[in-house]
Order: sequence, then C-alpha cells, then structure tokens
Amino acid sequence: SRCSLSLSARGMTPPVVVRALGSALLLLGLVLCLPTAAARKTTEPPEWTVPKEDTDSPYGSLWPLPQTVRFDGECYRLNQGRFQILHSSTSTATVGCGILDDAFRRYFGYIFSSSYRTTHRRPVSSGLETFSQLVYEDDYDTHLINKTDIIDFPRFTHRGILIDSSRHYLPVEVILQTLDAMSFNKFNVLHWHIVDDQSFPYQSITFPELSQQGAYHPVTHIYTASDVKEIIEYARLRGVRVIPEFDTPGHTQSWGKGQADLLTQCYNGEEPSRTFGPVNPAVNTTFGFMTKLFKEISRTFPDDYIHLGGDEVDFSCWRSNPTVKQFMESHGFGTDYRKLESFYIQSVLDIVSANRKGYMIWQEVFDNGVKIKPDTVVEVWMESNVKRELAKVTRAGFTTILAAPWYLDYVSYGQDWVKYYQVEPLHFNGTAAQKKLVIGGEACLWGEYVDGTNLTPRLWPRASAVGERLWSQENVTVLGDAYSRLTKHRCRMIRRGIPAEPMFVGHCAYEYKG
Amino acid sequence: SRCSLSLSARGMTPPVVVRALGSALLLLGLVLCLPTAAARKTTEPPEWTVPKEDTDSPYGSLWPLPQTVRFDGECYRLNQGRFQILHSSTSTATVGCGILDDAFRRYFGYIFSSSYRTTHRRPVSSGLETFSQLVYEDDYDTHLINKTDIIDFPRFTHRGILIDSSRHYLPVEVILQTLDAMSFNKFNVLHWHIVDDQSFPYQSITFPELSQQGAYHPVTHIYTASDVKEIIEYARLRGVRVIPEFDTPGHTQSWGKGQADLLTQCYNGEEPSRTFGPVNPAVNTTFGFMTKLFKEISRTFPDDYIHLGGDEVDFSCWRSNPTVKQFMESHGFGTDYRKLESFYIQSVLDIVSANRKGYMIWQEVFDNGVKIKPDTVVEVWMESNVKRELAKVTRAGFTTILAAPWYLDYVSYGQDWVKYYQVEPLHFNGTAAQKKLVIGGEACLWGEYVDGTNLTPRLWPRASAVGERLWSQENVTVLGDAYSRLTKHRCRMIRRGIPAEPMFVGHCAYEYKG
Repeated sequence: SRCSLSLSARGMTPPVVVRALGSALLLLGLVLCLPTAAARKTTEPPEWTVPKEDTDSPYGSLWPLPQTVRFDGECYRLNQGRFQILHSSTSTATVGCGILDDAFRRYFGYIFSSSYRTTHRRPVSSGLETFSQLVYEDDYDTHLINKTDIIDFPRFTHRGILIDSSRHYLPVEVILQTLDAMSFNKFNVLHWHIVDDQSFPYQSITFPELSQQGAYHPVTHIYTASDVKEIIEYARLRGVRVIPEFDTPGHTQSWGKGQADLLTQCYNGEEPSRTFGPVNPAVNTTFGFMTKLFKEISRTFPDDYIHLGGDEVDFSCWRSNPTVKQFMESHGFGTDYRKLESFYIQSVLDIVSANRKGYMIWQEVFDNGVKIKPDTVVEVWMESNVKRELAKVTRAGFTTILAAPWYLDYVSYGQDWVKYYQVEPLHFNGTAAQKKLVIGGEACLWGEYVDGTNLTPRLWPRASAVGERLWSQENVTVLGDAYSRLTKHRCRMIRRGIPAEPMFVGHCAYEYKG
Repeated sequence: SRCSLSLSARGMTPPVVVRALGSALLLLGLVLCLPTAAARKTTEPPEWTVPKEDTDSPYGSLWPLPQTVRFDGECYRLNQGRFQILHSSTSTATVGCGILDDAFRRYFGYIFSSSYRTTHRRPVSSGLETFSQLVYEDDYDTHLINKTDIIDFPRFTHRGILIDSSRHYLPVEVILQTLDAMSFNKFNVLHWHIVDDQSFPYQSITFPELSQQGAYHPVTHIYTASDVKEIIEYARLRGVRVIPEFDTPGHTQSWGKGQADLLTQCYNGEEPSRTFGPVNPAVNTTFGFMTKLFKEISRTFPDDYIHLGGDEVDFSCWRSNPTVKQFMESHGFGTDYRKLESFYIQSVLDIVSANRKGYMIWQEVFDNGVKIKPDTVVEVWMESNVKRELAKVTRAGFTTILAAPWYLDYVSYGQDWVKYYQVEPLHFNGTAAQKKLVIGGEACLWGEYVDGTNLTPRLWPRASAVGERLWSQENVTVLGDAYSRLTKHRCRMIRRGIPAEPMFVGHCAYEYKG
C-alpha cells in the first residue's frame, strides 16, 4: 500500500508541480491546460507578507500552508474533458496502485464539481489535497490554476484526531465524514478511543459478550468487524492510520458487564459492595483474557501501534479488596499501588509486544515509572506542567505526542481556534535531540457532550488550526493570514459536505443547508 | 385562523383527555384503544416527587411539564388503523380548520412513525405535542398511553426564540427546522432578527436595492417574498408567531449599500471620511424611506407586532457630521444626542403605529426616555442590573420580556442548560401588577458564530430549558427530574429529525447520523 509520489500529466503545457516529501498521496498534481489572458487573480503575491485581519492572504485558500510556495503570473485553464493525473515516468508507482487510483478519481470530483452537498455522505474518491486547493473558478465557471511551485512535507509526522465512541456512540457515517475532513486538513492518525466506562461498542469475535452486555445497545450501538474494516479502509485510502485505544486498567466499567471477574470487586469494610473498580491485576484470568483480546485487536487493526491508555487509575477499590491486598503483600509492593499499576501495565505491554505491535500510552504510565519499550509513544495530556512533562519524557528518550493544549471538547465563546493555533509544541527546555522526539500531536474531541448531532461542526474548523500547526513551518503564525485562508478553507469543506462551523461573521458561496 | 380546542375521538373507549387553555393547538388528544394487561410502565407515579439525578422522572418524557398531570394505572393501546383525532361536539371548530387539520395529520405521523430521519426536512404536518409525548412503545412496538388527566396552559404568553440571519445567512430549511423544534418545545414566537450591519437578506419589493446591494449575495443569500411567506405559514401551522426585527438607527451598515443618503456620513474634522454611522435622522428623505419600507413590512408580516430594535446606537458619527450638528441646534437638542436618538425613534414608532402595528424595542429606547405607546413591549437584554431594569420598566407600566439571561450564543463547557433553567423571571422587586407585565422571555441565538452548520445542535436542547421555565409552574425546578425528562425529550427531537446535542453521556435508541 505504499506508493511513490512522482506523478505527471498527459499532454501538458507548462506544468504546475507540487512536490511532496514524506506524506504519501496528499499532494502532487499536474495540469493539462492552456494559458488564458482573461483569468482573474493572476497577481503575483509576495512571499511571507503579513496581511491585516480580513484581507486576503497571498496564499489564497491553502490550508495547511505548504513548506514553500512560489506563485507565477501565468494562469492556466483546466479542461474537464481532458484533464488527467498520471504517474510520471520516474514514478515507482503505476496504474493499479489502489490508493492513488482512488485518490485521482476522488480529487477529480473535488476539483470539478461545484458542490458536493448532494453526494457528500460517501464520496467515491481522496488525496492531492494541495493541488485541489490551488484550483479556483472564474465568474464563468472556468477552472483555473496559477503556475505554482510547491515543495512540501509535514513538520510533524503524527497529526492525530481523537474521537470517543464510548461516552456516545458515533454512527459509522459520522466517523467516515471525520476521515474526509481529516484528509482535507492533512491529519494522518485517527486515534479511536473506542471503549470506556460508559459503553463497549467494539464487537469482539473472541468475547462477543463484551459488546452484547457492555454496549448501549447490542445491535444498533456497536461496531461490527465489517464496520471496523470499512472505517480502516476508508481511512487508508485517505492516508490516515487508525490507532484504536483499549484503555485499561481504569476506564473499564463497561468491560465488566460482559466479562465476569475482570474488574476488581470493591469492598465496604468486610463486605463486597455493589461496585467495581479497575481491572483486577491480582488474578491470572485477567491476563488470559487480555492475551486473547489483544491478539484479536492486533489482527483487526493493521496499524503498527495500539493505544493502551493507562490514565486516571483510581486506587481506592484496589485498596479495599482483600485478594488484591494479599497480592500486593506477596509481591512485595507494600502499600504502593503505583507498583501494582505498573505490574499490570507491564504485563499488558508484554502481551501487546508479543503481537509485534508498538504501543502508545497516556503520560501517567511513564510518570509512574512503568518500564516501557524504547519505541513507546507517550501522549502528554495533563494541562499543568506541559513543558516540564515534555522535557522529562524526551529526556528519558521516549517519543512523545502532545494533546494537552488541544482538548477541543472544551468549548468557549468566540475564536478559540487562535488559542490552538498559537501553541508551539517545541517550546520546552530540551536539546535538539529531545525536540526530535516530539513527533506530533492530537486534537482530542472527548465525547461527554458530543455525538453525531454536533461532532463535525464542533471539530471543524477548530481542529484545522491544530492541523496547520502540525504541518506547516514553525514561523507560520500570522493570525490575519491564517484567518483569511481558513475562512476560505472552511467554505471549501462545506462544499465538500462537511458542516464546519463559522469562524466569525460572513458567508460562503455554498451554505450548508442540513 | 383561531380554532377552538375542544376535541374528541371517534369510537373511543375511556378517553385520555388533555385539556388546554390559552395556547392554541399544541395540546388535546383522545385515544381510541383498548386496555392491555401486559403493558409496561403502568405504575402510578406519585405527584411532585423529587427524583435523584439519573433516575426516571414520574412524568416520563413530558417537556415542558404541564400545569397539572394525573396518571392513572390504566393503560391503552393505540390502533394505528383506527386511531383518529376528531372535533368534539362542543367544539366551535370543525373539519376545515386548516391549522387543526394539518396538526392532526402531522401528529399522527409523530405518534406512529418510529423514525423521522428520512423525511425530516419538511414534515407535511404540528400541534398536539403533549398528547404525542404521552405515547410510548412497548418491546413489541405497540403504541401505548396511560390514562392521564392533564390541565394545561402556559405560565407566560410570550415564549420566543431569536435567530439572526444577518451575521450569517440562515437557509430557509434551517429556519423551518427551528420552527419544528419550537413547536416541540411550545415556543410560540420566532423573533427574526432579519437584518443588521453585516447583511440585508430581506428582499424588499419597494426597495429591491437593499438586498441587491446589502445581502451577502443578491440571489442565493436573500429571503424572497415567497420564502418569507413560506416561513410565516409554516410557523402559523405550528402555533408560532413571526415577529421580524428591523433594527434602526444603529446596526444598519448593510442598509446603506442599497439606499443612498440613508446613513450618516461620518467626518474626520472638516472632511467626509469613508465611513458611515447610524441612520441619518437630520434629513427628511430618511422618514420618507422608512414610511414606505415599514408599510411594506407591515403587510408582509401579519403579526400585530414589529420589533424596531433601537439598541447600541453609537453617537460619534452623528457628532462629527455638520448637517446633524445643525439639526441638533435648530431642534434645541444642545449636545444631548440621546434627544436626537429619541427624536428618530419617536418618528419611526409613529410610522409603525400608523400601520396599526404594535412594536417591541430593546431596553435602551425605554432607558433613553423615548415616548412609547402603552402597549409597547420592552425587551430587557443587558446582563447588568437585570432585576432593577425589570422593576423600572414595569413600574413605568410597560409590558416587558426577558432576554438577558438567555443569550444562548454564549457557549461554555458542560451542562449550561442548568443555568438557563434556574432563572426565575419574576424575581425582582415589584408589585403583583408589575409582575403581570412580564409576559415572557426569549432565548437568543445571535449569529456571529452560528450558521446552518451548527444552529440546531447549539439551540437544542439548551433552549428547551428556557421553554419549560416559560411554560411550566414556577415551582418546577427540580434538576434531576428535569434532566431525566429532557434527555428523553432530546431523543424524541432526534427521532423527529432535529439534531439536538447531547446533555451528557448516554444514548438514544435512534441516533442522529447526519
């Protein structure tokens, strides 16, 4: 599924070339058209000017901004009947590379169709995003493109969106729409927080009772194997990896409904209470269960990484349980329940490693001193002391991604995209080698107040601000320029069927009508 | 178009009667069914118990809560093939009353169709809301209703939603969807803030240049006469009045684009600047224009009231203009520009009165001492000193409505519906006679950050909290009970095609899929 990026166009006159390094299939395009004297917007904008608020950006509607862009005065018309994107003679990929074939077709549609409102749920085609963003229409619907030389690659390799399908079930349609929007914003990782305390919508083949008992509804509120497959393939065609999160030992209340003895029985003094705590690490059955479950998960999700959670483990129930207490004693853990947590996590990490998967974990696992493999990705989410945490994790030599400043479920009045945009992930004390270990970040839309009714407008274009921060150069920080491009990018998302909410007063040529 | 509310059902066994006083056609229904022994949920809940958070309300999913509800142990099944709502022999309305005929059909659909997701854009049929909320389904899809005696009427007569189609154009479809949701929540006034600084989407027949020049787009971003007519009729069938707001003399930048010399030319010292201020009250042409425009508006909008705005008038431009200064002098206004504002507003009020319309105004008009007719409705919107303002306005004998605590465009994380729910409009110092002058309130969704992409999930169910406050008894304040009913009511809205956002974790049997 890895295709080279070298493409060309049949029968072309002076080509528009978008060179891409590193991020497969988002880029690259060549036009097949003739120069026109009557074209609009043919002025040569200066590079890196600082426009005032509300003035047009010299970079039009490009989002995120490529690494370097050089416009030329020449302008070309695109002939819909003859336009074609082809593999260049230097390309290692050829016709038959499914990702590119699919992307060619999909982007043909994005470029030439004036509105996607009617067909937006499941567009047939994704990729070539930058090229499509360069195409504009004149007053007579002619598709135009300025001669442009772009060299591009992402600043960070991990550009993720976290969605949460446990607090609310997210219909498959909504997830696919999110993947569309991600590809328009060059995100490449869907961090799928699939299960949690509230519900277990993942339908396990090995343990069907988990969703049978743990989902909000065993039929209508689950992700079947076929749903998961569809989501992964849809993502793959859009250059997006799907990393599932099966968070343990905390955040597992829903697991207990379909798997007896998995959770710790809490006690009120001598008596068992009616409540359960985290996964019980004091019994062997737990690890037998985890071995089988993660074996299945490792096969279901082809990505090299699984997110294992490990956050917010409450020790009070463990403390109350006699079996756990005895286990602590026999292992010499004393009363340090962080040691028990480490013991548990360590075991799960070993299970996952045995399936030849890497893992991501929330920062507590690192903070608590669990021994983790060198290729572990530590996700920093706690808002306090973010810089110190980044320094600590990278000093210890671990790869890290940043989530803390980008919890998009926290909403506030006004243009909060600015806040997300102004984050600089590498602003912490550390050596160049440490900074290299920060491979990206994630915009997290936790699901307490989010479901299919409001996910998309709440996520976009606020997450787009994170998208540009993770893609473009560090010095791309001018708010007026970003505002101008992003308002246009938002309207483009709407045209492509994504109900991205407005940034401020104004309008789009095509409005979203529901 | 006023129909009596007395209805009955053909071939009925013991009827469920919902008596309604005061608010036409939202209520009333009689079942035609047989008692069933196997029915669920037949327990008799106590009246006015205080349930804990997350426990079911004894009032099921009723929202807003009727004035009195008495359940009976008996339960009836509804036979879809024979069920019919009829006018009772004591009714003054008969077949042919369009509002009721339409409502009968629409609510038949709401009662018997399990999901409206496919047809939700423009349902053919509205009314009988309370009755439809009493119907539930058992596990075998049988529609059931408990024998129930309800006496109901609204606590406040003015229950409004403000939408803003100037900061962003709102597609007609979105406005119709809002009207559907309003009827589900027993709101009865659409306060349509139709034009403002940013755009003038109202297409005037008399002054077509206003939208031609002042709308975001002269064709795609306007409300034609036919659009306005459709919205008013759709509203009428749902028991909703449409009160348009044509806000002057401030908030009128978009008016100036299509009407020369209407706005005040601002000056920089001796020189005209390139900016314009509020409507120019110093020239006769202004009032000639307003006379013609409001004549048209008075005919287009059949409601007895027009909202004339009058808020946030900035005096600096008036101060800079020599003609205005001279006018001030010749009228003996000195340098008190509030007198000029009053002069202007007074003139507009007289124009509107001549068209035999009442008017609503924002509180500044009253605060500034403009002489207003006794039947004027003063809308209180300023957050500071709300109670003092309510006392002042009502002491002066004016009818008032409350908007200040219900600016729903201000979003924040979490369950802010509680804040809106806990407002008590009559908590101010005043006599019983003063309190009677507070006829209701409005939930205001200003449009700076709202368009068709996010209006509906941002408005509902947050506005539902305002809806119950304005409908139900003052002592209906138990949050746990409200939470339980409102979560169910939200799911019902989703079933009927309204993407109302979640209040917290959980699920609906039918989720919104976009």
